[in-house]
Amino acid sequence: MVCGLSSAVPSYLCSMPEKTYSYQQLFDFTKAVFEKIGCSPEHADTATKALLSADVRGVDSHGVARLSGYVRLWEAKRVNATPVIKIIHETPSTAVVDGDSGLGLVIAPFAMQIAIEKAKQVGTGWVSVQNSNHFGIAAHHAMMALEHDMMGIAMTNASPLVAPTFSIDKMLGTNPICVAAPAGKEPAFVADLATTTAANGKLEILQRKSLDTPTGWVQDAEGNPSTDPHILKKGGALLPLGGDRDHGSHKGYALGAVVDIFSALLSGANYAPWVPPFPAYVPMPAQQPGKGIGHFLGAMRIDAFRPAADFKKDMDHWIQGFRSCRTVPGQEKVLVPGDPEREYEAERMQHGIPLLQTVVDDMTLLGNRLGLVL
Amino acid sequence: MVCGLSSAVPSYLCSMPEKTYSYQQLFDFTKAVFEKIGCSPEHADTATKALLSADVRGVDSHGVARLSGYVRLWEAKRVNATPVIKIIHETPSTAVVDGDSGLGLVIAPFAMQIAIEKAKQVGTGWVSVQNSNHFGIAAHHAMMALEHDMMGIAMTNASPLVAPTFSIDKMLGTNPICVAAPAGKEPAFVADLATTTAANGKLEILQRKSLDTPTGWVQDAEGNPSTDPHILKKGGALLPLGGDRDHGSHKGYALGAVVDIFSALLSGANYAPWVPPFPAYVPMPAQQPGKGIGHFLGAMRIDAFRPAADFKKDMDHWIQGFRSCRTVPGQEKVLVPGDPEREYEAERMQHGIPLLQTVVDDMTLLGNRLGLVL
Repeated sequence: MVCGLSSAVPSYLCSMPEKTYSYQQLFDFTKAVFEKIGCSPEHADTATKALLSADVRGVDSHGVARLSGYVRLWEAKRVNATPVIKIIHETPSTAVVDGDSGLGLVIAPFAMQIAIEKAKQVGTGWVSVQNSNHFGIAAHHAMMALEHDMMGIAMTNASPLVAPTFSIDKMLGTNPICVAAPAGKEPAFVADLATTTAANGKLEILQRKSLDTPTGWVQDAEGNPSTDPHILKKGGALLPLGGDRDHGSHKGYALGAVVDIFSALLSGANYAPWVPPFPAYVPMPAQQPGKGIGHFLGAMRIDAFRPAADFKKDMDHWIQGFRSCRTVPGQEKVLVPGDPEREYEAERMQHGIPLLQTVVDDMTLLGNRLGLVL
Repeated sequence: MVCGLSSAVPSYLCSMPEKTYSYQQLFDFTKAVFEKIGCSPEHADTATKALLSADVRGVDSHGVARLSGYVRLWEAKRVNATPVIKIIHETPSTAVVDGDSGLGLVIAPFAMQIAIEKAKQVGTGWVSVQNSNHFGIAAHHAMMALEHDMMGIAMTNASPLVAPTFSIDKMLGTNPICVAAPAGKEPAFVADLATTTAANGKLEILQRKSLDTPTGWVQDAEGNPSTDPHILKKGGALLPLGGDRDHGSHKGYALGAVVDIFSALLSGANYAPWVPPFPAYVPMPAQQPGKGIGHFLGAMRIDAFRPAADFKKDMDHWIQGFRSCRTVPGQEKVLVPGDPEREYEAERMQHGIPLLQTVVDDMTLLGNRLGLVL
């Protein structure tokens, strides 16, 4: 049980009933599921690694808890298990990829690999993706750049749950941004953030605990401030990072908009309120101005700017500076982006990955349907 | 008087005593000041356009109100009026520029032009800048890309006023990010945001009005929440966008950190708490791990991804979608990033630029010293 591991983990995330599985157990089951729906062994392997990276890094909302959701999208013919993923336009430093309605878990690593190859050639590579689906956590894709001494960038748009500042209507997804940068002796800097005050997964946790949300997370169907964690089911909306105008929500809104433009307007994917939903039971938007959902992947070779050794030495100095800050009352340490997830990874790779009983039940049912045992 | 122009402008920004000047009046005076300190006519022209773009766009804290500050930096020999700005490393899509301690107002447009030229050649261009000074508003530089049917990106680090989540120590500047994207019939999308809940200029306004800040803007010298707009002078700090951990301040902190890494770690500029201060009376940091302050400029050719006409058509549709949102109680319209600044520009180019009496007094004193009349 990992709660209390990091002071960045709020206490309400703790003490849910759960069972623990090894990475290998979850890997074998998940890969078998992807193969059962028709994915090639190679695609199933890629998708499984991307999906499980969320469980390993403590982002429980984006890992195997969503596995049955991906299968339902395939059953609804919204996911193509055998996509022909291809570049449809390119320049020396850019490309647009058509994901052929495949799993984002497979398409995003494909696109990131192109970005890395272009960065090798001309210093940086930037790939916008159309016709994709949910790609898991952004960090998994951005971090692919690190082993090449590159910075990695990953973004995706998502179905509309977020109301812009002053709006009742939900126009944007939680639209995350990840930036990963290598360091030397210190672990890599990895910032992976939804452009909302809080993501949907945190609401689900509060629902289970019958707790209210803090202010600035959600509003109700009429656009009034709310602290009801069930409010999305009642027509409410998530709020952009900042919460309200006085606290900078116009900035969170602008950042979410930037992610939408990079991911979908540059690629020809659906954007704004017309992004297809993840739950297969939610009807597709009536209007579809583009194809599927959109991502944006980037890679920048460090030595396209300065020697990688110099950069990494400065990154170590930078990181150590933040780690040695004096802390505010009640806190033990100042974290560097990526610290909490890395602590989860060390813990879970050694002691296993705890899953909520509801997730175990969902996966067991899925296994029964497909003839697989968790 | 422009207050009330936009519903995005809080009421406490209004009703200061002020005088109004035409753009041309301020242009002539400002250019003459830059020439008096030794800038070439060409550099003085570039710097003046960059500086005044802030006044025109309603970002009063970053325009001529800072003119005497730039002169004091020159007097303190921290600004070189005759810099030899040059590329010190490059690849087809990247460059590092050494600004030779010149005005950021001159160096950033130079670097952005390089980014644009590289984007013409290979699809995108990315320039990290060392050895620079304050560059004015990010939007001015990012928007240079628009006329080339490119997206523009501009960032800069700044001297440390911001405490990371859980930290007492001030480790980052307000580190703004701007992204500009062209549209078709609609005006361009221009998101320009400090990665803090509120920037320093807003505190100054509250000080003059003897008003408290909202929660989540600042903390005191011991790291406790505060609403005192004078708190920075008492050892306090600005807070990252989000304000506190429950409201996502770790995200604002991560974004400010990303700006620092792009601007300074990639270029070899000073970073984190070692960024030189803007006020010339504040001593330089004891440690200087790099050179000057750092910027990051980027340009992406739209047709390196898809035909610019298709992109612009979708941008128009996107923008119109946001403009037609239903509004929350008490608000008239949902804004698109760039709307308030464009409304200011239309108003001020026609009716003049209002300056606070304190700013007029400061500029008059500066003129007297240099033998110039405002």
